[in-house]
Amino acid sequence: MTVTDEYLKNNETYAAQFEGPLPLPPSKHVAVVACMDARLDVYRILGIADGESHVIRNAGGVVTDDEIRSLAISQRLLGTTEIILIHHTDCGMLTFTDDDFKAGILSETGVKPAWSAEAFSDLDEDVRQSLKRIETSPFVSKTTSLRGFVFDVATGKLKEVTS
Amino acid sequence: MTVTDEYLKNNETYAAQFEGPLPLPPSKHVAVVACMDARLDVYRILGIADGESHVIRNAGGVVTDDEIRSLAISQRLLGTTEIILIHHTDCGMLTFTDDDFKAGILSETGVKPAWSAEAFSDLDEDVRQSLKRIETSPFVSKTTSLRGFVFDVATGKLKEVTS
Repeated sequence: MTVTDEYLKNNETYAAQFEGPLPLPPSKHVAVVACMDARLDVYRILGIADGESHVIRNAGGVVTDDEIRSLAISQRLLGTTEIILIHHTDCGMLTFTDDDFKAGILSETGVKPAWSAEAFSDLDEDVRQSLKRIETSPFVSKTTSLRGFVFDVATGKLKEVTS
Repeated sequence: MTVTDEYLKNNETYAAQFEGPLPLPPSKHVAVVACMDARLDVYRILGIADGESHVIRNAGGVVTDDEIRSLAISQRLLGTTEIILIHHTDCGMLTFTDDDFKAGILSETGVKPAWSAEAFSDLDEDVRQSLKRIETSPFVSKTTSLRGFVFDVATGKLKEVTS
């Protein structure tokens, strides 16, 4: 039995108590961009209820073309206007460099990724960098609020990153 | 008061009851790739507890370079081996075409995105396409289980997509 099977069993319990459906557009008009880290239960951390906010996540919570794509769709088709960006302490992205990561893949597979791994060495600076990438994108143009935070995995608290 | 402020208030309640910290590597060795849709509370849908699984999300739950980047980091640096892919019914990605979406951006901003919007017209087919993109990537090579599902926003149930 895989963990996937175990999670499918959990889904039966979830579905038995499910009350749906809710409308497609996020009722609170928010999009969250956060790291994929297993300790970040974004809905709980922010007290988000079902149907309120889009949640976009990847390694680091960094902003690449795919987050710009998701935010553009979120704003232009589904009416979100606020953006919340979340990085966190003890992040895996602080533990390596792009060059080493890609050299490892190259030596194992013979192929070097054409993409950047987006490792970073300073949490606050990378939050600022991610905010800047959103601010400077011509495709994410409906933003009324854009704020970035570091989640502390030891305390559960969000700390705002200011410029 | 913005919704962001409201969510920050919720975070104070969350932090007051927080028990941490947990270790960085996902304890169940799973990575979930899912749509950003506001109705998909992935932790609840699968019964995921804090610290167990990476959660990667974007518009559609599609697999682009950024999901490959995240999965490569998840597997190579943090030891995940199972992958669960989740699309869902009533998805925004079913409601437009890439050409129309990009023409709209072009006419408003004068710039056409270089990326694909990744709209799709068949849910099951797009789950298969996303699975295939993972299977064929040389950078996601530690997978022991890879399965794709459609979440029904009316019932809360996951339906597996088979090839």
